[in-house]
Amino acid sequence: MVSETTKVPKYYHIRRQIVNMIRSGRLKPGMRIPSENEIMREYNVSNTTARRSLQEIEAAGWAARIKGKGTFVRERNVQRSATRILGFTRNMIEAGYTPSTKVLDARKVAEGYSGTINGRRYVMQGPLYKIHRLRFADDIPMMIEVRYISVEFCPGIEKQDFTGSLYEIYEKHYGLQLVEIHQMLSTVMVDAGTLGFFNVREPIPAFRVEGVTFCGKEMILEMEDSIYRGDKYRFSVRAT
Amino acid sequence: MVSETTKVPKYYHIRRQIVNMIRSGRLKPGMRIPSENEIMREYNVSNTTARRSLQEIEAAGWAARIKGKGTFVRERNVQRSATRILGFTRNMIEAGYTPSTKVLDARKVAEGYSGTINGRRYVMQGPLYKIHRLRFADDIPMMIEVRYISVEFCPGIEKQDFTGSLYEIYEKHYGLQLVEIHQMLSTVMVDAGTLGFFNVREPIPAFRVEGVTFCGKEMILEMEDSIYRGDKYRFSVRAT
Repeated sequence: MVSETTKVPKYYHIRRQIVNMIRSGRLKPGMRIPSENEIMREYNVSNTTARRSLQEIEAAGWAARIKGKGTFVRERNVQRSATRILGFTRNMIEAGYTPSTKVLDARKVAEGYSGTINGRRYVMQGPLYKIHRLRFADDIPMMIEVRYISVEFCPGIEKQDFTGSLYEIYEKHYGLQLVEIHQMLSTVMVDAGTLGFFNVREPIPAFRVEGVTFCGKEMILEMEDSIYRGDKYRFSVRAT
Repeated sequence: MVSETTKVPKYYHIRRQIVNMIRSGRLKPGMRIPSENEIMREYNVSNTTARRSLQEIEAAGWAARIKGKGTFVRERNVQRSATRILGFTRNMIEAGYTPSTKVLDARKVAEGYSGTINGRRYVMQGPLYKIHRLRFADDIPMMIEVRYISVEFCPGIEKQDFTGSLYEIYEKHYGLQLVEIHQMLSTVMVDAGTLGFFNVREPIPAFRVEGVTFCGKEMILEMEDSIYRGDKYRFSVRAT
């Protein structure tokens, strides 16, 4: 099964084939993936190679080994660090998924926006760009976001392509540096309208993330109000 | 109404009286609190004093001003910084509440404990102290926690009083320094058994917090698995 002409290591090839079976849904969460012995037989490789491919699959979070029982496909959750400035796009790529985005609405609005985040009230004067997007990992809808963007810092942003990272637009197109993000996480039930976007029938709990992003001292670049699916997301934090 | 002999500023007195009405439930979430004019008349104070007391009540999160409508009692939420090492006790005191604790169970267990937090598996070998507690702000049940504590670092901890801060016991009694806490936040529906502890009838979403606390490099002092009421908690994070 492993092509003779390939230059990628065998374990990598095996890893990719098994991960593809997980991604495509042929191997579903809770199902057992091939064992070391099965990989050795099926791919005609050494136990070192078989073990290495299993270790990589496990390390990437696709599966978990249960002692004496085998290696099983894990629930497909994405971990999001709450203490790193990290856009959806990069977060997904690092987690091994292909990110994509559906722009639901994008327009300049006359009104301003304000929100209370971590006890402080932040106000953005209008006009603003308001961008409403649904974001996917592979083809799974993961989160829905509304971003309010400063016209002052990002003039003409409506001409940009919104199917990728806004952070990248801020940095590459406008030369802005994101210096700080404050976010407030609450937990909510996903409302009926949003369930449809997520292709989910029954109500699920979710994270609501309200945030404000600064591109300099007291300079508000954007604010956001997003819903992250609770069945897909974990937030990681580290306190020191 | 303001005692002549008091040395605390008048605005502080007024603030305390109004906050006490909110705490006692006489003023409920959504209700309007006295206006500047009403405070001036009722307490016979200047508009500066009246305004200052309202500002303090608002700043402490007890109420929110809605332009042209008045100042209204807010839902009683507690904010918890996810990036500070901050125990429940101190968190509540800083938020203006009186913390208390009901110990549901506390015992030495032979088994160890392990959990995967932010993609890494942490293992504590048995025996351990396992402490199950319900924690209150004023008299409202806020969160329920299970803590697994190292016998090695905290010998004889069963003789301590568990109705207060464990962090304080670690620090004051064992001279341990908490150097780092890793936590993973997920969102779950509160299960039927736990709803009873929270005095809540219908299912509510909640934060599940799984954590590991270190008292030195790779030295696990404790692990936890807790449920924080979603209707009472917000987590604040800051990314740089």
